[in-house]
Amino acid sequence: MAVSPFAPKALPVLPPLDGVRLAACEAGIRYRDRKDLLLVLLPAGTTVGGVLTQSKTASAPVEWCRARLADGGARALVVNSGNANAFTGMRGRAAVEATVASAAAAAGCRPEEVFVASTGVIGEPLEPDRFKHLLGGLAADAQATAWEDAAHAIMTTDTYPKLATRTAELGGVPVTISGIAKGAGMIAPDMATMLAFVFTDAPLAAPVVQGLCATAAANTFNAITVDSDTSTSDTALLFATGTAAAGGAPSISDATDGRLDAFAEALEELMRDLAHQVVKDGEGVRKFVGITVTGAESDAAARRIAFSIANSPLVKTAFAGEDPNWGRIVMAVGKAGEAADRDRLAIWFGEMRVAVDGERDSDYREETVAAYMTGAELEVRVDVGVGEGRSKVWTCDLTADYVSINADYRS
Amino acid sequence: MAVSPFAPKALPVLPPLDGVRLAACEAGIRYRDRKDLLLVLLPAGTTVGGVLTQSKTASAPVEWCRARLADGGARALVVNSGNANAFTGMRGRAAVEATVASAAAAAGCRPEEVFVASTGVIGEPLEPDRFKHLLGGLAADAQATAWEDAAHAIMTTDTYPKLATRTAELGGVPVTISGIAKGAGMIAPDMATMLAFVFTDAPLAAPVVQGLCATAAANTFNAITVDSDTSTSDTALLFATGTAAAGGAPSISDATDGRLDAFAEALEELMRDLAHQVVKDGEGVRKFVGITVTGAESDAAARRIAFSIANSPLVKTAFAGEDPNWGRIVMAVGKAGEAADRDRLAIWFGEMRVAVDGERDSDYREETVAAYMTGAELEVRVDVGVGEGRSKVWTCDLTADYVSINADYRS
Repeated sequence: MAVSPFAPKALPVLPPLDGVRLAACEAGIRYRDRKDLLLVLLPAGTTVGGVLTQSKTASAPVEWCRARLADGGARALVVNSGNANAFTGMRGRAAVEATVASAAAAAGCRPEEVFVASTGVIGEPLEPDRFKHLLGGLAADAQATAWEDAAHAIMTTDTYPKLATRTAELGGVPVTISGIAKGAGMIAPDMATMLAFVFTDAPLAAPVVQGLCATAAANTFNAITVDSDTSTSDTALLFATGTAAAGGAPSISDATDGRLDAFAEALEELMRDLAHQVVKDGEGVRKFVGITVTGAESDAAARRIAFSIANSPLVKTAFAGEDPNWGRIVMAVGKAGEAADRDRLAIWFGEMRVAVDGERDSDYREETVAAYMTGAELEVRVDVGVGEGRSKVWTCDLTADYVSINADYRS
Repeated sequence: MAVSPFAPKALPVLPPLDGVRLAACEAGIRYRDRKDLLLVLLPAGTTVGGVLTQSKTASAPVEWCRARLADGGARALVVNSGNANAFTGMRGRAAVEATVASAAAAAGCRPEEVFVASTGVIGEPLEPDRFKHLLGGLAADAQATAWEDAAHAIMTTDTYPKLATRTAELGGVPVTISGIAKGAGMIAPDMATMLAFVFTDAPLAAPVVQGLCATAAANTFNAITVDSDTSTSDTALLFATGTAAAGGAPSISDATDGRLDAFAEALEELMRDLAHQVVKDGEGVRKFVGITVTGAESDAAARRIAFSIANSPLVKTAFAGEDPNWGRIVMAVGKAGEAADRDRLAIWFGEMRVAVDGERDSDYREETVAAYMTGAELEVRVDVGVGEGRSKVWTCDLTADYVSINADYRS
C-alpha cells in the first residue's frame, strides 16, 4: 500500500512521562511480521476519562471501557490490532475478561483498572489464548520511551504511525501531554476516531479528565471524517497520572478551575493534531480539506451542513479530480436538511469567492480556482446566509485507491 | 464510458397513449451529437401529480413545478439535459419563464400548463435563447411513438435509456401506464430520483394522481440510492390524460376508490421497474443489491437502517470486491442510530444466514458465501431483533469507475 503523501518526514519524539511505560510485540493475531499487541503501564493514582463510539453495535472492549470509566481510575491499557472483537457475542466478553485478567496479573493491579481496545476485522472471534501469555513479558520489558513502537502496534491500514506531544503550564508548573492514534478507514463523526490514547502527568480528578476529554474531542476527533462510516470500536481515552504534582503542579478537582485554561487549549491542540493525522492517512487520500460553514441557524446546524459536504461522495470525488465543482457543494448544502437561503449562499475555495447571492460570482475565473485545486491542502468555506452558527470539520478526497483498498481489505 | 452490465438487451416498446406526442432534438446545450431537448404534448384535461426534491437548494425548474402542481393540470412538458438550471439565481427563474412561454406558444396552452425539468451541471447559467426557438418545430414534429428518443434526450451520464410500460384494469377497462427516467449519479432518497415522467390514459382527478404518485414513489424512487447525494433537481411527475374515458374507463375522483387498487399496483410496479433501472445504471455499477431490514422498531426505523447499509462506502466497496464482509453490515446497523439488539442481530446473504444471535453463524462457510457474492444481483437481509418494522431499499456497489467518472465529469 502506498504511503500517504501527508506522512510526516520525521516522527515527533515523545518525552518520557513519569511512571508511564510501554511495550509492544508481534503476537501474530492477524498480521505477520509487525507488532500488533500493546501494553501500557500507568502509575498508581492515574485518573481516566474518555469518549466512545455511539454505535448501537459497539464492540466488547468498548462496553468494558464504558463500564470502567465510571470508576475513573486506570493502571494499564491493552490494545491489539488485526481483530476488533466486535460482534463476537458472549465469546467477545469472555475474551475481554481473559485479557484484563492476564494484564492485571502482569501489571499488579485489579482487572477493573485495565482498559482494553481492539481494532481490525469485525465478526471474527478474538482468541485471547493467542496473546494473553505475552502480557507478562511485555510488562517486564516496558520502557518509558517506547512511544513509536506503541503507535505502530495499533495500526491497521494506516500507512504511518500517529504521535503528538505538547506542554502546558498548570499553576505555573509545566506539564506534558502526549498521545497516539490510529485511523485510516471507518472514520466518521459521533465518536472519537478509531483509537486514540492521550497521557498527561497533570494531577486531575477523574471528572475533570472526563470533561476535558469530551470537550476537546468535540472539535477534533468528532470533527473529522474519512468515509462517513462510524466504527464499532471508536475509543479515545485520556489518562492523567498526576505525577507532575511532585514537581509542584496543583491538583485540580473542579472542571471550571481557571488554571485549566492553558492545559485545555494544549490538549485540544494535541487532539486536533492527531485527528488531522488520521484524516491525512485516510485510505487512498491525496487531498486534505477543511470545510467551514458560517451563517447557519446554530453551530449544530452548521456542523450538520459541514458534514453533509465533507461526506458527499460527489464532493469528495471532485476534490480527487482537482475540479472546483462548487455545484456539488450547493447540492450537499441542500441535502443537509438544515435552513439555508439558496439566494444568499456564498462559497469560497481558499480566498477565492466562487459564488455569491445564490449564483456564480461574476469575478469567477475557472482557471484560477482550478489552479488552487491542485494543492494538497484545501479550504472550502460556505456561508448559508441565515444566522450566526458556524462549524469547521476536516475531510479527505475519495480516490480510486480508497475503493481498491476496501474492495480487497478483508479477503 | 462503458455501458452498464445491467443494460437491457432490448428496450421495451411503449405503445402510443392517446393524445400524448413527443419530440426530441439536438439543441447543443452542453453535449454534442446527441439529443438534449424534449417536448411532450398532452391533451386537454390532463391532470398531474408529482414528488420533488426535498433539497434546500432546489433548482428553478423544481420551484416552478412545485407551484404548478397546486393547479393540477398540464398540457406540455419540456426537459433539457446538460444543464440543471440550479443555483442560477434570478437568471434561473427568467430562463424557466422564457422556456415555458415559448413552449406554451408552441403547444397552444397557457404558460402555467407547462411543466419543465432540467438536469446536468449545477451553477452554470442556462441560456434559453440557445433552444427556445426550437420548441415550435418540436411541437410540429411530435409523434405518439417517439418514446425512445424521449428517454435518450433526458440522459446525462446514463449509459442506457430507461423505459417501462404496464397495463391495468380500471373499472373493467384496460388502461396503460408508460414512463421514462434518468439517473446515474447524485441519486439518493428523500426525493423522486433525478427525473422520471410517467403517463397514463386513466381518467383521474388531480388529487388522485398526486396521491397515487406519492404513494408509489415511497417504495420505489424513494427507496433507492447510488451515492447518498440528493440532487437539486429530482422530479417525478405522473400525467393522466383521461383519454381512456372514451373507451369506458370510469373517472376517479376519490383517492380511496377501490377500483384504483389494480392501477395503483401496476403504477408501483412500473415505478419500481424504472427505479431499479436507475440503480442498475448507477455510475460505475457492477452489482445491484437489495437490502431488506426486518425486526426494527418501526418501518421508518427499518428504512433508516437499510439506507445506512445501502449508503455505506465500506459496505459498497465490499460488494465491489465480492467480499462477504458482513462485519461492515454490523457497523452500518450500529451507526444508523436506530434501536437494534446487537445480541439478537441476524444477517443473511441470499438464503445463507451468516450471523445469528450477535455472532457468526456456526454453519458459516466463507467459500459458499464468497461464491454467492460473484453474482451480479445480490440480496442482503438483516433482522435487528427488536420489533416488527420492515423496509426494503436498493443500492449498487462503489467501484473505482464511480470515482473516475466523478473525478472527471465536469472538467
